[in-house]
Amino acid sequence: MSLILTFLGKGGTGRTTVAIAAAHQLAAQGKRVLLASQDPSGAFEHLLGSAVGIDPQEVAPNVQAVQFRTTVLLERSWDELKAQEAKYIRSPFLKKVFAQELGILPGMDTALALNALREFDASGRYDVLIYDGDGDQTTLRMLGMPEIASWYIRRFRKVLTDSDFYKALSPFIQPVSSAVLNVDWSGDLFSNPEAARANNMLDDGKAAVTSPERVLAYLVTTDDEVAIATAKYLWGAAQQIGLTVGGVLVNQSSETGQAAQELQPLPITPIPSYPGRGWQPLVEALPNLTDATQVPRAMSVNLAERKVALFLPGFDKSQVKLTQYGPEVTVEAGDQRHNLSLPQELKGNQVTGAKFQDGYLIISF
Amino acid sequence: MSLILTFLGKGGTGRTTVAIAAAHQLAAQGKRVLLASQDPSGAFEHLLGSAVGIDPQEVAPNVQAVQFRTTVLLERSWDELKAQEAKYIRSPFLKKVFAQELGILPGMDTALALNALREFDASGRYDVLIYDGDGDQTTLRMLGMPEIASWYIRRFRKVLTDSDFYKALSPFIQPVSSAVLNVDWSGDLFSNPEAARANNMLDDGKAAVTSPERVLAYLVTTDDEVAIATAKYLWGAAQQIGLTVGGVLVNQSSETGQAAQELQPLPITPIPSYPGRGWQPLVEALPNLTDATQVPRAMSVNLAERKVALFLPGFDKSQVKLTQYGPEVTVEAGDQRHNLSLPQELKGNQVTGAKFQDGYLIISF
Repeated sequence: MSLILTFLGKGGTGRTTVAIAAAHQLAAQGKRVLLASQDPSGAFEHLLGSAVGIDPQEVAPNVQAVQFRTTVLLERSWDELKAQEAKYIRSPFLKKVFAQELGILPGMDTALALNALREFDASGRYDVLIYDGDGDQTTLRMLGMPEIASWYIRRFRKVLTDSDFYKALSPFIQPVSSAVLNVDWSGDLFSNPEAARANNMLDDGKAAVTSPERVLAYLVTTDDEVAIATAKYLWGAAQQIGLTVGGVLVNQSSETGQAAQELQPLPITPIPSYPGRGWQPLVEALPNLTDATQVPRAMSVNLAERKVALFLPGFDKSQVKLTQYGPEVTVEAGDQRHNLSLPQELKGNQVTGAKFQDGYLIISF
Repeated sequence: MSLILTFLGKGGTGRTTVAIAAAHQLAAQGKRVLLASQDPSGAFEHLLGSAVGIDPQEVAPNVQAVQFRTTVLLERSWDELKAQEAKYIRSPFLKKVFAQELGILPGMDTALALNALREFDASGRYDVLIYDGDGDQTTLRMLGMPEIASWYIRRFRKVLTDSDFYKALSPFIQPVSSAVLNVDWSGDLFSNPEAARANNMLDDGKAAVTSPERVLAYLVTTDDEVAIATAKYLWGAAQQIGLTVGGVLVNQSSETGQAAQELQPLPITPIPSYPGRGWQPLVEALPNLTDATQVPRAMSVNLAERKVALFLPGFDKSQVKLTQYGPEVTVEAGDQRHNLSLPQELKGNQVTGAKFQDGYLIISF
């Protein structure tokens, strides 16, 4: 299992520079580090000072680097999907579509990057994965995906299996699928082994994103007030998906200044400008990035009082909405919606009250 | 019909600043301008100096502004989808899912923004739509989507309708759909009126993206060499989806410098730093943004010689791949794949040769 580290902040604040310095710091501590970039423009290679390929290669002792290329990730996933299809379906038809034909639709970049991170995590070859992605809402959409995708599956499975359409179709599904497919789906399209495997992957992903030992984000800003405001927004938006923010790095600066006021109580560290070569000054300035025990957790549960507290810094009361449909409790803030993963004792219970104060949304059951 | 303008470049180069100055310039020429932001962090409002809501409102004479909020766009689209469902399906089941429950998956931001731009374009209320999006590969994925989505539909329709699975299922589709649905699909799931409407929308989108009178991009960079390299990459990537790049704006600069060398033959204009208030200095520095007659087109066709030339600046021969499967000719470069929209005379013909020189891929049929 690896720790996944990522950096959030406005474009141009030096997220990639900080990510590379972080890789050198962690490698110097003896950790096996993989730096993964999703920027196809060549800026990452330029800053790193090495060419980076589509498979990991060493760029410094203990540091490997990889360039996520969506066309390649899609080809590999497609070939795997075709192999699955050939296993389960007697006359496979996806095999007629070649991986090299497939275009990239919006969302594929992030979905395939998340899958690649999952595979590198499972490989056991790295202690730390540093993901240098868009560093904005797009990265948060990626990390929020396991939770949201599992909601879509849960919700639409129920709606579909309850529907007249499904009921009318279901007598045909068994005989047709037996005739064409090799598998016995026992009448429910969702209970086949592949669906179960996908559900497990989503559950693992959900658990990882909300554990600071597994996934951790840092904010990067400069002294610029727009950059600080963007960092503050991304802090709240990260908390909203359950992702822990471990601290703030004020880049190209010698003091913590205005950022310290806006982003308290996060630990704030000034980082000097990158001198153009030699990472040592930045490595020395960085805090210990693997220790996030001092920061507020996104969600805390008080079972005795039957209360859940969500820390949503940067939002005011009017920007936070809470809704409940059946067993699903949904929180909306900052153009994101998030379904709460409640402990067993509270799951399915009715929300009896909620208040928002001092950045905390406190929900009673 | 509106002209859609967008700005591509590395984060932090001032794309949003330039977009706002452009809005003021075009408004001063008497054009009705809509400025649309997709950045939820508040940076756009900060620079604009006005609060911006989810529906357009005037922020200056002839200038309206709107904040795309994906949760809201999704709710509106969902309600429309439910209305369609209720029209065609006797016992609708989507209606049981409330728009306020829906989470945002990767890709929804861009897909819904494109749909919103389409609706504003169709409204006839604006001469120019300025889209201030991510300004990177994500924006290009958005604008490439109509072409790629229509490829997926074409290709998978054929594969599916040829499959044994579909043939085994098709006798059941007619009786079941007649029993449950109101519509007669005459045996082909893809020939219903909604599918035809969606196909028309995709064709319109494809035509718009490749017409410089309809959609036009400008590169924004600073003097920084990484920013210039990013701009160059995005130029090639834009050409690759058929999008015309009208010129380069070198922000926070008084000279065209290195950018002029790297990005020729594009017209290059230096833009002074934004003084913090008062857009006039920037408005005066901007070139005429609606005239892109002097720049290389992404694709040109020579019917007499049966040749198609694609201008792909910034790529070398090893980075460009050409493949043909049946009638589909696919070009891959810069982590994007694009199916060529060929004129009727060349469509379905075999590629007989291809060469890459001076930034041009020349394909013979």
